Amino acid sequence: MSDSPKTEKNEWRKDYLLDRWVIITANRGKRPQEFVRKREEKPSEAGTCYFCPGNEHMTPPEISRVGDGKGSWQIRCFPNKFNAVDLSFPKAYGTHEVIVETPVHGQRLSELSVGHLVKVLGMYAERERKLSENKKLKYVLIFKNEGPAAGASLAHSHTQLVSMDRVPMLVQEEMKAAKKAGGGCPYCKIWKKEKQKKVRVIYENGHAIVFAPYAPRFSFESWLFVKPHRGSLGGMSGKELHAVADALKQVLARMDRLLGNPDYNYYLHTAPLRKKDGDLHFHIEICPRLGIWAGFEFGANSFLNSMAPERAAKALREA
Amino acid sequence: MSDSPKTEKNEWRKDYLLDRWVIITANRGKRPQEFVRKREEKPSEAGTCYFCPGNEHMTPPEISRVGDGKGSWQIRCFPNKFNAVDLSFPKAYGTHEVIVETPVHGQRLSELSVGHLVKVLGMYAERERKLSENKKLKYVLIFKNEGPAAGASLAHSHTQLVSMDRVPMLVQEEMKAAKKAGGGCPYCKIWKKEKQKKVRVIYENGHAIVFAPYAPRFSFESWLFVKPHRGSLGGMSGKELHAVADALKQVLARMDRLLGNPDYNYYLHTAPLRKKDGDLHFHIEICPRLGIWAGFEFGANSFLNSMAPERAAKALREA
Repeated sequence: MSDSPKTEKNEWRKDYLLDRWVIITANRGKRPQEFVRKREEKPSEAGTCYFCPGNEHMTPPEISRVGDGKGSWQIRCFPNKFNAVDLSFPKAYGTHEVIVETPVHGQRLSELSVGHLVKVLGMYAERERKLSENKKLKYVLIFKNEGPAAGASLAHSHTQLVSMDRVPMLVQEEMKAAKKAGGGCPYCKIWKKEKQKKVRVIYENGHAIVFAPYAPRFSFESWLFVKPHRGSLGGMSGKELHAVADALKQVLARMDRLLGNPDYNYYLHTAPLRKKDGDLHFHIEICPRLGIWAGFEFGANSFLNSMAPERAAKALREA
Repeated sequence: MSDSPKTEKNEWRKDYLLDRWVIITANRGKRPQEFVRKREEKPSEAGTCYFCPGNEHMTPPEISRVGDGKGSWQIRCFPNKFNAVDLSFPKAYGTHEVIVETPVHGQRLSELSVGHLVKVLGMYAERERKLSENKKLKYVLIFKNEGPAAGASLAHSHTQLVSMDRVPMLVQEEMKAAKKAGGGCPYCKIWKKEKQKKVRVIYENGHAIVFAPYAPRFSFESWLFVKPHRGSLGGMSGKELHAVADALKQVLARMDRLLGNPDYNYYLHTAPLRKKDGDLHFHIEICPRLGIWAGFEFGANSFLNSMAPERAAKALREA
């Protein structure tokens, strides 16, 4: 591992655990500002937004909500109308849900208060707990697509939740690699080492830390870890949840400031349902969509990244 | 394997060899025409095209060319100015080249004659052979990005070639899986089985076949195989090269007609340099970029595809 903030020559880097490789193309030497993209067209704003208050009747029947104390809601969960999986699909068993995190159309997640974000994470945890009662379900994948370049087809901010009868290969690979590494949870060591090295750390509070991973697939990719070894949101104390929410707000707000409200995806890597914490260390991987994967990425399943994570972290720390 | 052309319920499908999974979301039931995207802005046409005849002095020094018999060229190869790897980078060793397949700005690969495409493949083979003399190089990845949604930053049609001191993980995984399958080359069996089943075949001639793979990551993804067991273009006879060029033209032309000149990537999967044919069965994977990978894909490393390959193949056959 070379950790110089300025990599002068390009280099291949391997993920901490996975056999996943990236070439840091430092020779392209772009400054962070050059990653600010002219925003693509927002998804059509014409017509009605199904996710706005007042249009609740246009979504499938509500599953859960966090009320606002005035008869309306702050957060709302309902089935995805265009579901990839279904309890009635024998070969694609599961549920596909949408969680609208805010009633305010156009509001970005970074603009929510930490208290509100705690409730969003609480909704994720509540759905995970509820779905874990169905023993045929093995995993809940929670992810967010923000903006058209990140695959969002609707502009109103929302998270998706897919429960399934299997554990995704990527999560299996992480678990396998973690086991192979031996000596307890490798992620516990990874975040501590990153904290010690400092150069890739973006933000830290008492119970959570955000850093740019050593071998990022995306420019400004950021990983958010809860510090204590927890497998899922459901296993966290109130303080830990609050720390994760605070760190999430911090990293998203810094991205928004530095990169001009970029489109991004994030996804939670949590332990499989009903598994002990030993299996995976909860983290959120946040992937700004500033470039486009192309023939190299698909043909090699390796990645080109012109923004060294040391430089990305520095820019996000200072943003 | 279910092969009904009309999958009524969604289903998870696994790649022939890799542990790579896709949900065919047949319930979204889009017709092929609905995949035609309003074209994004073409990459800037303003100013000079570095790849056009007359501007040869604006590229790094030429490596090779196919002349047009009139003092100019049909095909031209030179170093990529924005190279990911370099012979002077100890940690990212290799060469990064550009092959401009046609002097005509705006011409698509599907518009080239089969004879011209044979020469393009010949240039790929020539560069691979030349690079194989450098024993530090282990692999040559050849790929094409067509259009901005496929990551092309220049509009003039071109291929890229990255030689490297390692074999990409994806190719290693394919080789490992092929070995594990036992009983000789599994790809030889796969194309024969697809030919027999017919339902996913798109085009076939004497020495080459194109089909939609059973578990495609992309809508209208198409795989082109040379039928005899060959590891690389260099190992093919003239007739086989001609058959591959003909099949390439056929599938690209069908995609262009059906999908309105879609942006796409393709990449060649060839055997590592100086390896016997036994190691990999040459094929080209063609990936139209009609949708956007998002949180599900990145978080699970599994894929959602709303166009069942049986339907895609039928539409491309008839296009």
